Amino acid sequence: MADRDARSGEDNRPTGIPVLRWEEPPEGPVLVLLDQTRLPAEEVELVCTDPAALVEAIRSLAVRGAPVLGIAGAYGVALAAVRGFEVAEAAAALQGARPTAVNLAVGVRRAQTAHQDALARTGDAGQAAAAALAAARALHREDAEASARMAAHGLALLDELLPAGGHRVLTHCNTGALVSGGEGTAFAVALAAHRSGRLRRLWVDETRPLLQGARLTAYEAARNDMAYTLLTDNAAGSLFAAGEVDAVLIGADRIAADGSVANKVGSYPLAVLARYHHVPFIVVAPVTTMDPQTPDGASIEVEQRPGYEVTEVTAPQVPVAGAGGGIPVAPLGTQAYNPAFDVTPPELVTAIVTEEGVVSPVTAEALAALCARSRQVTIS
Amino acid sequence: MADRDARSGEDNRPTGIPVLRWEEPPEGPVLVLLDQTRLPAEEVELVCTDPAALVEAIRSLAVRGAPVLGIAGAYGVALAAVRGFEVAEAAAALQGARPTAVNLAVGVRRAQTAHQDALARTGDAGQAAAAALAAARALHREDAEASARMAAHGLALLDELLPAGGHRVLTHCNTGALVSGGEGTAFAVALAAHRSGRLRRLWVDETRPLLQGARLTAYEAARNDMAYTLLTDNAAGSLFAAGEVDAVLIGADRIAADGSVANKVGSYPLAVLARYHHVPFIVVAPVTTMDPQTPDGASIEVEQRPGYEVTEVTAPQVPVAGAGGGIPVAPLGTQAYNPAFDVTPPELVTAIVTEEGVVSPVTAEALAALCARSRQVTIS
Repeated sequence: MADRDARSGEDNRPTGIPVLRWEEPPEGPVLVLLDQTRLPAEEVELVCTDPAALVEAIRSLAVRGAPVLGIAGAYGVALAAVRGFEVAEAAAALQGARPTAVNLAVGVRRAQTAHQDALARTGDAGQAAAAALAAARALHREDAEASARMAAHGLALLDELLPAGGHRVLTHCNTGALVSGGEGTAFAVALAAHRSGRLRRLWVDETRPLLQGARLTAYEAARNDMAYTLLTDNAAGSLFAAGEVDAVLIGADRIAADGSVANKVGSYPLAVLARYHHVPFIVVAPVTTMDPQTPDGASIEVEQRPGYEVTEVTAPQVPVAGAGGGIPVAPLGTQAYNPAFDVTPPELVTAIVTEEGVVSPVTAEALAALCARSRQVTIS
Repeated sequence: MADRDARSGEDNRPTGIPVLRWEEPPEGPVLVLLDQTRLPAEEVELVCTDPAALVEAIRSLAVRGAPVLGIAGAYGVALAAVRGFEVAEAAAALQGARPTAVNLAVGVRRAQTAHQDALARTGDAGQAAAAALAAARALHREDAEASARMAAHGLALLDELLPAGGHRVLTHCNTGALVSGGEGTAFAVALAAHRSGRLRRLWVDETRPLLQGARLTAYEAARNDMAYTLLTDNAAGSLFAAGEVDAVLIGADRIAADGSVANKVGSYPLAVLARYHHVPFIVVAPVTTMDPQTPDGASIEVEQRPGYEVTEVTAPQVPVAGAGGGIPVAPLGTQAYNPAFDVTPPELVTAIVTEEGVVSPVTAEALAALCARSRQVTIS
């Protein structure tokens, strides 16, 4: 079951509640999540005391974002093992909570394999549970380390490209701690610049239609005391024209073998604006985002999402009204074009920053070499 | 006073209710407005039987948009005169309803001058009232004629630029009958293409933050049975990349002497995308939009609007919550950058279409010649 514990301070400023944490006795063993469905209006902790509660949290999007889902799934297996639930059954339920989330399945399997191996080796349920928990913690730590390395590589690149400092960085969608075991991808670079005193301004695209920028990136910027300003996606052009953007930092959902980058819709127009204004356009993503099986941008299939995300507006506290649970703003019957992603060709990408280093210029050869190096590191 | 008469059919499809009409007895004399604050959720007619009701309708934005405000103001003076109110007092109240709306003052003064002249000439209140009404009708007719001429010039230009037909046109903000005595500016061109069977698709940018595209342009497209599709502003890049946009058609709020175009924020990014994809970017605006006193784009002052338009979402039926009457989506205390307009330099504008003809390429000399020709036409 899940307990909810709201922390709403008088001043409503975001606090430092971790996105996800494992608690040992006496509080635990439990997995505690920051309920992302309530952000930024409220910071509510969701305490999962059994795998079923975590399945429900994943289904309801209380926890979301590729890397953090994998970590949550691994901890879920550990929770099942430690609490004496049937591990295989829990693992299947967790994987089924969001069947298309690859990272979730990978994380679940990693903890489950560790559990099975330890059980086969020792025959001891306690040692097997400990092995599952160790696997979850290792995944969590590795993801945090990858974030830290991306941040360091990205900050070094920023400093190289913009030696004058005082970086004014534009970002899109949400790429911070809410989707990561660490501090994220593009957002982690901006945060590193902030901590080193070299971030003058973080420009936050609101990121229609789901407003991840307004809701989540603004929340993360506020909780880190960064100098940030929110804007509608279409106001970015005015900032570029005014010379107010020194670099664009975005994440990636998938990177094809030729360096084409699929990311949240609205990334490509930023790449075109950046090119027109001679501003670096930097993609920050872990090596696992690279997909050598997808040769180029044209081969990336872009998910089309429901039209009601565009024809209705939603907000955390809105009473239900339209087909999508929001309030209709367009005439009834209006059709919408609502691609989840767009694809930026490699010639518009200044650099791709990974935990294994920076690729610039972005070419198929350089990406292949980076992937090969990464595999060697992993195997060794 | 104003009466309200809601027409809500079973299927909720937009009807052909005029944006503004003058009714003679037995119903009138009254000025009937389509209440734009209720669109697209409801089509409600607002019947103004006295100038005070019209003042309130202007203040509440039931009627809005530069040209149509001028026409409404002129009819307001006529209404005062016909109904026996003090005309000078009514004219002052109407002008004061939105003091910065230049067209409103111009329309009011035109009808008031006609009234004064006729009164001085004939000494007859009835003839003076008839003269005020005739002036309002002339302004209404002239604006409709200008729309029709812009539509014809614009359609001819489209056909010249895109001889293959089957035009797929992208537009931004609202530029149709709701803001005009006729069928508008950019929207009127798309409508002419539709009526001649040469519009394959109208792509409608939702136009954050106030969603004039989703609310009003989609409404106008639906009521004209056009093939239209709504999109978030940041999804336009995907359409360009897919080769799905043949031309961009937008209006203008002000055109500087060098041809720089100030228009709703989000226009400039479309111009950059259009250039990158070799797509014509066409501005449609009456000659009155040209401002020879403003030498260039840098001289255009851009209004910064309240941040709550970005940090909150609003919809016609939303219960009041935040500072701006909407629902907060960003963390409390979030600062927003919210320019009302952006400026597109002339080198990104393929053509400017006016009621007096088309300027292409856009140069200071060509615009000056057009303005001079227009003044001759007006004087003659």
